[in-house]
Amino acid sequence: MFTANQDYLKLPGSYLFSTVAKKTGAFTQAHPEARIIRMGIGDVTKPLPPAVIEALHKAVDEMASAETFRGYAPDLGYAFLREAMAKHDFQDRGCQIEADEIFISDGAKSDSANIQEIFAGESRIAVCDPVYPVYVDSNVMAGRTGTYDPAAGTWSDVIYMPCTMENGFAPDLPSETPDLIYLCFPNNPTGAVITKAALQEWVDYANKVGAVILFDAAYEAYIKDPQVPHSIYECEGARTCAIELRSFSKNAGFTGLRLGATVIPKDLKDKKGQALHPLWARRHGTKYNGAPYIVQRAGEACYSPEGRAQIQAMVGDYMKNASFIRQSLADMGYQAFGGQDSPYIWLRTPGDMTSWEFFDFLLEKAWVVGTPGSGFGPSGEHYFRLTAFGSYESSVEAMERIRRI
Amino acid sequence: MFTANQDYLKLPGSYLFSTVAKKTGAFTQAHPEARIIRMGIGDVTKPLPPAVIEALHKAVDEMASAETFRGYAPDLGYAFLREAMAKHDFQDRGCQIEADEIFISDGAKSDSANIQEIFAGESRIAVCDPVYPVYVDSNVMAGRTGTYDPAAGTWSDVIYMPCTMENGFAPDLPSETPDLIYLCFPNNPTGAVITKAALQEWVDYANKVGAVILFDAAYEAYIKDPQVPHSIYECEGARTCAIELRSFSKNAGFTGLRLGATVIPKDLKDKKGQALHPLWARRHGTKYNGAPYIVQRAGEACYSPEGRAQIQAMVGDYMKNASFIRQSLADMGYQAFGGQDSPYIWLRTPGDMTSWEFFDFLLEKAWVVGTPGSGFGPSGEHYFRLTAFGSYESSVEAMERIRRI
Repeated sequence: MFTANQDYLKLPGSYLFSTVAKKTGAFTQAHPEARIIRMGIGDVTKPLPPAVIEALHKAVDEMASAETFRGYAPDLGYAFLREAMAKHDFQDRGCQIEADEIFISDGAKSDSANIQEIFAGESRIAVCDPVYPVYVDSNVMAGRTGTYDPAAGTWSDVIYMPCTMENGFAPDLPSETPDLIYLCFPNNPTGAVITKAALQEWVDYANKVGAVILFDAAYEAYIKDPQVPHSIYECEGARTCAIELRSFSKNAGFTGLRLGATVIPKDLKDKKGQALHPLWARRHGTKYNGAPYIVQRAGEACYSPEGRAQIQAMVGDYMKNASFIRQSLADMGYQAFGGQDSPYIWLRTPGDMTSWEFFDFLLEKAWVVGTPGSGFGPSGEHYFRLTAFGSYESSVEAMERIRRI
Repeated sequence: MFTANQDYLKLPGSYLFSTVAKKTGAFTQAHPEARIIRMGIGDVTKPLPPAVIEALHKAVDEMASAETFRGYAPDLGYAFLREAMAKHDFQDRGCQIEADEIFISDGAKSDSANIQEIFAGESRIAVCDPVYPVYVDSNVMAGRTGTYDPAAGTWSDVIYMPCTMENGFAPDLPSETPDLIYLCFPNNPTGAVITKAALQEWVDYANKVGAVILFDAAYEAYIKDPQVPHSIYECEGARTCAIELRSFSKNAGFTGLRLGATVIPKDLKDKKGQALHPLWARRHGTKYNGAPYIVQRAGEACYSPEGRAQIQAMVGDYMKNASFIRQSLADMGYQAFGGQDSPYIWLRTPGDMTSWEFFDFLLEKAWVVGTPGSGFGPSGEHYFRLTAFGSYESSVEAMERIRRI
């Protein structure tokens, strides 16, 4: 008789953001008068840029006529989008990435969850702690993480790299040697960044020990500091040790439109000389059918002069919120981090409050929803994440309410 | 040092349709004068119905304004679409399926490839032979199929259920007991259908032995025969043994728009009483971020009175092609099957030709691209698939060219 995947059953509780949504839903049902300000899930609120809207309408019209209708997309994405990304995201920054090393997908979340699949089952993973839950959970589901220790909130076979106030939220090189290293900079959830020099050390380390860095660059559009790299391929040697995940969600506001990409250089090979590029291509060909044509056209529009200017303005608005939130919290006496090259503000909870206690406290007293740091890993306990993706007015209002508590 | 997933390396050759595309590409490069008629990959050619286009434009406009902008979709899909499907696809046919048992996705291909993941690694799968390659390949990638026998074209740990002329392309119940049974009716690639009475036998069998039927209903819109069920949930007892995969690709022409759904009844539980519904929900929450809002609105439009009438007309046009192709082939002396409740025509290759020999023959002599039956499994050898998804004119022209060979 059939049996469910027992590795799924090892997952404690539900996906973090589902829990946040459920708790918020329960509160609003009990308090219909509460005007909630949502600074929890990292979802954008501004409408899509006009250049993107125009591209969408145009592509929809193409789908209305037999002459211009498009059916199945090429497995790995349309050339027009892959070429635009290769030029603007990589080659213009001096990174040697070709269009056919870019795989278009429905988003960085799917890719960051699925990428582990092309590696051996016994691969050892290393993650920052706190960390975006998808990296760990997708490996739990694949049976790669050993047993869970509920008291510690850790898995026996995962290498954790703590990122706390004490080390400036910058992970040290792991003491045990991993096969796969998940890095995300600008970081979700801490908002920390990494300089090119520091990232180069990781690249050198990965090449030395034969590890792959899975580099999540979903927040690169928020980087202002010129010392901070926008792509791991700015570092020398990254082509032989790094996979990069790209997103259109947080720069261009595609959270509801769904578009992302994964870069796998053709030079990236395992110890037997097996390249990873054809494996990911095979996965796309077999288990996926491409992002919608109209959405890929929308993605292309992000690279037009108008699109780029509009996206820059949008990101600028969110960054204005981020600066304001961080400064306001600091003024109130909170220890607040991030928010400078990142849309996330990471704060230390006041007193002895746990992350979830502070979640409830903020929800009940200020009608503000954030994300408990402990949901991102044990070292996130006593921290809390706020996002800058609301309007300026709502950011001001939220800070005012927190001040009044 | 890191190692690639060795199960991926077991896959022989490339994904069938990629090979067809590559061979066709090479031929057209060598013969630029060739006006190819594509009857290979099951891709539609008619533009999206006006009701769908209208819904897309309207939804795009909503994304252009902060008041109506939509970010992340609900994990499992928007209620408006799940409710429309529950009513029209299930409840109106007397099937007891609720909206919250329907999971919206980016297509039946992804779902049919990913669904194996919620089952134990040691699950034994049974497939029809020939079969849609995704069912087998996704299990190969998960390490579930044993070793490949290149001479036989079979995997040691897969239970094959031959479907040939001799048994009317209707599989017999398997002699060994499987955990998962993949069934697709109307069938891809043979175009065969199953009556409600015959499907009931499968449901009874699955309930008896404790197997799950993964029922691919992607082609249900092509059913004309009133004895053929549109959903497995028309059979009694299916709620405790069946998962159904639905697609918008072949009815509404969404191959390039990407939308599908998977139904998992809450009653479906493994031997330990573990329900599968929360596992698939967890997979959606962790490894996927929902189909685009605008595409879900397009899906909703398929259920409006206008949308339904337009889709019916479109399917009717394709079915006119299917009848014509099957009749023309029969007139030429081919043994042709399917094409009556299905957009696929399945023919026996002439003489002793292998499927790939006939592929090359048809490409070179008639500039017609089809799909070699052997690509779908060993029992597909000496068969060939043609699709009815072209225009009527191109279907007529293709038959004319084949007649002239």
